[in-house]
Amino acid sequence: MRGVFHAVEAREVAFGIVPIENSYEGSINETYDLLATTTSKVCGEVTVRVRHCLIARQGTKLSQIRIVYSHPQALAQCATFLRAHRLEGVPSYDTAGSVKLVKEMQSSKVAAIASRRAARLYAMQIISEGIEATGTNYTRFLILGRKIASRSGDDKTSVIFGVEHSPGSLYRALHALANRKINLTKIESRPVKDTPWQYNFFVDFQGHVQDRVCQQALKDLQHRSTFVKMLGSYPRESSS
Amino acid sequence: MRGVFHAVEAREVAFGIVPIENSYEGSINETYDLLATTTSKVCGEVTVRVRHCLIARQGTKLSQIRIVYSHPQALAQCATFLRAHRLEGVPSYDTAGSVKLVKEMQSSKVAAIASRRAARLYAMQIISEGIEATGTNYTRFLILGRKIASRSGDDKTSVIFGVEHSPGSLYRALHALANRKINLTKIESRPVKDTPWQYNFFVDFQGHVQDRVCQQALKDLQHRSTFVKMLGSYPRESSS
Repeated sequence: MRGVFHAVEAREVAFGIVPIENSYEGSINETYDLLATTTSKVCGEVTVRVRHCLIARQGTKLSQIRIVYSHPQALAQCATFLRAHRLEGVPSYDTAGSVKLVKEMQSSKVAAIASRRAARLYAMQIISEGIEATGTNYTRFLILGRKIASRSGDDKTSVIFGVEHSPGSLYRALHALANRKINLTKIESRPVKDTPWQYNFFVDFQGHVQDRVCQQALKDLQHRSTFVKMLGSYPRESSS
Repeated sequence: MRGVFHAVEAREVAFGIVPIENSYEGSINETYDLLATTTSKVCGEVTVRVRHCLIARQGTKLSQIRIVYSHPQALAQCATFLRAHRLEGVPSYDTAGSVKLVKEMQSSKVAAIASRRAARLYAMQIISEGIEATGTNYTRFLILGRKIASRSGDDKTSVIFGVEHSPGSLYRALHALANRKINLTKIESRPVKDTPWQYNFFVDFQGHVQDRVCQQALKDLQHRSTFVKMLGSYPRESSS
């Protein structure tokens, strides 16, 4: 993930794409932490429907499988399926890599959770498809670049801010948005790395930084917080 | 983790203990999700200083090690150390278990990240101690039981609530606390599992549910949210 941010900052690529949250498992902490500490800007978002497959060697039956390898988020999304079939999940670095691992292990006791495409890539068998816990499993990705996207008329803005450790400080900061009827679409807290039990807040809200009302809100937020870091404004996806 | 919640609910044990957040890596999502869906009550909190060790077979040198096994949160807490020494982190289920795994692998190319105690338990060598990214790395644990703790005079209360998907709804809900100068010590959002991009909020605030001001605040919060689930009141740890 860090590599994607670095490639954008070092001008090796024009744009990068990183996962930010899954509709079932929640936020991707690593991405939030990298947004806080790098200079990349958010210039778009894309939401992708996730369909997980249980993948094993050709000829394997579900009843033979004992151990299932995959990325921790994929294992978490399929936890209900794993429990129902008494399968033990073992975390690995990524979903497609776990298919390769299972292929190399040459055992009918092991399987992987990954996409249909990964099964095809390694010529492996799909034992079961759509094994995620909910039929509506989506992952939202952010497009990273070096500039804020221009105004489309239906935009979203992402910022990070910190507040004093005192009663009502978060509430007072959110007043800057609520007071202007700006729709907060997401709020996430992440620990401040070197100060235990202090948090920064990441918020997404409707509007573009070039909109007058957003400019006023951000100015107000600056007065009500210890710092504000602008992450970007970008066209809002209709599905999100 | 699920097993701890179940043992408390099934009355197999009087109390359970589960990690809720790390001062560096943030919240433990699995614990938050189990708090939402089970009937266990929070009846205490304990904060423990975390000191991670790099552990390998006797006689291994740091320069020989290529791969390091540990729990994903421990790998994340030691990411700076791993990068500096060009070590590849591989996630495993728990920290102590990764020491056992490395012992069994009988290779000087592998190591584990775990506690000093785990190294002693498996008679393994500590290559480096205190390899976490910050000198102030703490993990906060919750004590689970079936009843709310009685009032100590310096207490904390934890609740979950949901809000309508409309501008200012979270702000209006937090008003129930801010209006009474109740100190919010933590706010965490988690996705509603079957409704993409809907969130529930977990809040910790100072005070006991038997305090008059907290009772009023909770009643008010109920009016301002779609539901409130009381998780517990418990003595506040002085260190947190």
